[in-house]
Amino acid sequence: MAVFITGVAGFIGCNLARAMLERGEEVAGFDNLCRGSAANLEPLRRRAAFSFERIDLADIDAYRRALGALHARSPITEVWHLAANSDIPAGTADPNVDLRDTFMTTFNTLLLMKELRIATLAFASSSAVFGDRGGRKLSEDEGPLLPISNYGAMKLASEAAISAALETHLERALVFRFPNVIGVPATHGVILDFVRRLRAAPGELEVLGDGNQQKCYLHVEEMVDAMLFIRAHARDKLNCFNVGADDEGASVRFIAEQVVRRIAPQARISFGAGPAGWPGDVPRFSYSIAKLARLGWRPRQTSAQAVSRAVDEIAVQEGAA
Amino acid sequence: MAVFITGVAGFIGCNLARAMLERGEEVAGFDNLCRGSAANLEPLRRRAAFSFERIDLADIDAYRRALGALHARSPITEVWHLAANSDIPAGTADPNVDLRDTFMTTFNTLLLMKELRIATLAFASSSAVFGDRGGRKLSEDEGPLLPISNYGAMKLASEAAISAALETHLERALVFRFPNVIGVPATHGVILDFVRRLRAAPGELEVLGDGNQQKCYLHVEEMVDAMLFIRAHARDKLNCFNVGADDEGASVRFIAEQVVRRIAPQARISFGAGPAGWPGDVPRFSYSIAKLARLGWRPRQTSAQAVSRAVDEIAVQEGAA
Repeated sequence: MAVFITGVAGFIGCNLARAMLERGEEVAGFDNLCRGSAANLEPLRRRAAFSFERIDLADIDAYRRALGALHARSPITEVWHLAANSDIPAGTADPNVDLRDTFMTTFNTLLLMKELRIATLAFASSSAVFGDRGGRKLSEDEGPLLPISNYGAMKLASEAAISAALETHLERALVFRFPNVIGVPATHGVILDFVRRLRAAPGELEVLGDGNQQKCYLHVEEMVDAMLFIRAHARDKLNCFNVGADDEGASVRFIAEQVVRRIAPQARISFGAGPAGWPGDVPRFSYSIAKLARLGWRPRQTSAQAVSRAVDEIAVQEGAA
Repeated sequence: MAVFITGVAGFIGCNLARAMLERGEEVAGFDNLCRGSAANLEPLRRRAAFSFERIDLADIDAYRRALGALHARSPITEVWHLAANSDIPAGTADPNVDLRDTFMTTFNTLLLMKELRIATLAFASSSAVFGDRGGRKLSEDEGPLLPISNYGAMKLASEAAISAALETHLERALVFRFPNVIGVPATHGVILDFVRRLRAAPGELEVLGDGNQQKCYLHVEEMVDAMLFIRAHARDKLNCFNVGADDEGASVRFIAEQVVRRIAPQARISFGAGPAGWPGDVPRFSYSIAKLARLGWRPRQTSAQAVSRAVDEIAVQEGAA
């Protein structure tokens, strides 16, 4: 009996797998290692209860063969589908990126779950399904859903396909609407970007946009804790939850200041004009997490605390003193 | 300068093309003729301002070649994307049907509009994006969006991709959330099904479900009128409108009675048990069309009137006296 994780070599996948292994669960994972890395799995591969294969989920034939063999060896009780494109600007430049890596991975996962009669799916959705709603607190039931990136569009398309699958072969779905999740091993994102740029050129940090973009951040440790809490306590057929910090978020300006303080305290910070960093970037975003609080889970850290902690962890990851 | 219509040989496509031609517009259309039929185009093909090619939009290479050539001959000012799977149970049985014909046709259309720099898209979305919301009146901004069919899921996925495309290459989008549209040339749907079954076996009409399923119906003539009205008057970048009758809809029982009266007045009607006819069927559905009324358009017929009219038209189409 195993839990199957897609995108297991990614930032959240490897943290989730470790948490499940620590709880005594058997975990099998696939990853195409395009954005996730084998190094992220090193601490896990020593464990007998963990297995990994390099599989591209967009290749339905390879995916079918590998998942069928895995399921025959060790029956899969739950699929945790985390695999996705994580480079939002890349998907804006070429819609095929999110079609392939964000949507078709979901579509193929649902198809194989139907074939193999695996009935429970947990899915990493995103705040990006909401589009730009101007910073007011958004609940799970909020409409309309008008994503402004292909990433958000293909996450919403995935939610829609999961919703439809619950009418036929799927019995239970957990849909987590992720905030910005931070921590290590960092593979992408604004903190890693700032740390790397400052270490390369410690005199100045150039920030895209005016720095007032404000978003919710959650540390990956809390994110994994929330997902496992929802898995244990949510009782509906389709359980969709916003997961995030219970605040207005932290600004890009705050993040830049934290990184400068940690990496190069003498650096100047320069800002661009306008609200958004790139096409598809939502300038202000805030969640209502009342539904998750009613279920019994609350974050322990604010967005600002999560940022401070992640800045330190990522500085260490990148070799800063 | 031409308007380009996908799915032009389908029930709504050919009615839309005719209305545009009657207004003096030049119209070009593609269709793979899988669900639409060449016969539907016969009345249009005599007109010099109309051109047609049999193209499968899911085949991106063929679509690119044909659309590029068309655009070079006669610059396309607007794309009206109506092509889609129209057989909801087929998409429930095999998700690849709606992936290919409902979503990938949209994805490919957006991709080619980007390449050819065509900036205006009108899209036939559906009430199916809402899922089963229990019959209360739904506005355009309503959430959550939890479709219960792959058809609805891939219409929602299409809306999402269009929303994201407005951040990059698309300048204006019209998104029509279609109700059940009826009239001729009928290619599918409950009225055609009842008419055909009664003509084959005039003694009894068996109805799936208990007959209390209730939905909004709009005659295709009114549907086309509404679309052209929205095109002329809506002023936002993304213009999403519910289009439908301004009532609680008509029941399957009412439709069955109308068809029996027209085709075989002596026939018995027998009903099944339970609310839904098949997986993916929404048992009760009602729109708010307040947004469209504020823009200045109202339907002239009720759902029941549209049904009565369409029953007569479809009876004639099928050769009934």
